[in-house]
Amino acid sequence: MTSFELHPQLAADTETVATWPLCEVLLIKDANYPWLVLVPARDGLRDFDDLSPEDMALATLEITRASKVLKSLFSPDKINVAALGNMVPQLHIHVIARFAHDASWPQPIWGVVPAKPYEASELDARLTVLRDAFEAT
Amino acid sequence: MTSFELHPQLAADTETVATWPLCEVLLIKDANYPWLVLVPARDGLRDFDDLSPEDMALATLEITRASKVLKSLFSPDKINVAALGNMVPQLHIHVIARFAHDASWPQPIWGVVPAKPYEASELDARLTVLRDAFEAT
Repeated sequence: MTSFELHPQLAADTETVATWPLCEVLLIKDANYPWLVLVPARDGLRDFDDLSPEDMALATLEITRASKVLKSLFSPDKINVAALGNMVPQLHIHVIARFAHDASWPQPIWGVVPAKPYEASELDARLTVLRDAFEAT
Repeated sequence: MTSFELHPQLAADTETVATWPLCEVLLIKDANYPWLVLVPARDGLRDFDDLSPEDMALATLEITRASKVLKSLFSPDKINVAALGNMVPQLHIHVIARFAHDASWPQPIWGVVPAKPYEASELDARLTVLRDAFEAT
């Protein structure tokens, strides 16, 4: 039993892609980038170093799994990984496929351009391709 | 033997604090934040998921060690951890102590305000306190 609850801001900004041993895997609803957020389903974590050693090992496996699927699906120029959380205090780890032609390149993506809504069909297609790829890994 | 060489931009922007089993630990010369960068001393790495499983385990230990020392020395409101590398392609992991009153809060620190040079005596003092704390961990 866990009393883990996703922070309402993360719930509002994302769609659920998968539930992994440690993390809820979410897609941020910003069509500018293939942008995942991994949220360890543990109560009361804020910083990456708050994870227990066992959970940190799981976190790195899941960051790696997410990164490798983004690479295989989208052939990005770079993967950005970050645990920031200055605004949403619940520990969450961004895993973002970046491209030399994307809206914020070469800057980090936060605060550079507004989120670009997905078309409904585009969002469905992206969720399907991600879910299929994660089931295959 | 390794042919690892620190990227010249990282060398120019930092002072060396310590050499750990995996990473060179560097202090970014920006007095706005206690800002460390961990650079795995391995050739040819770009993304976090390029680390071997063994090196990834070391990386998480070293991120944790750096985070906990920053917390004990500076009592920050948040630790930001990030592997971005859109401009400097050599894998490097930022570990930054953030404060609700710092120059960029609550935004991520990149591109918000210019770097603030340390006074020479202030830089020496910060390096000494960090090196002493790392020797004690």
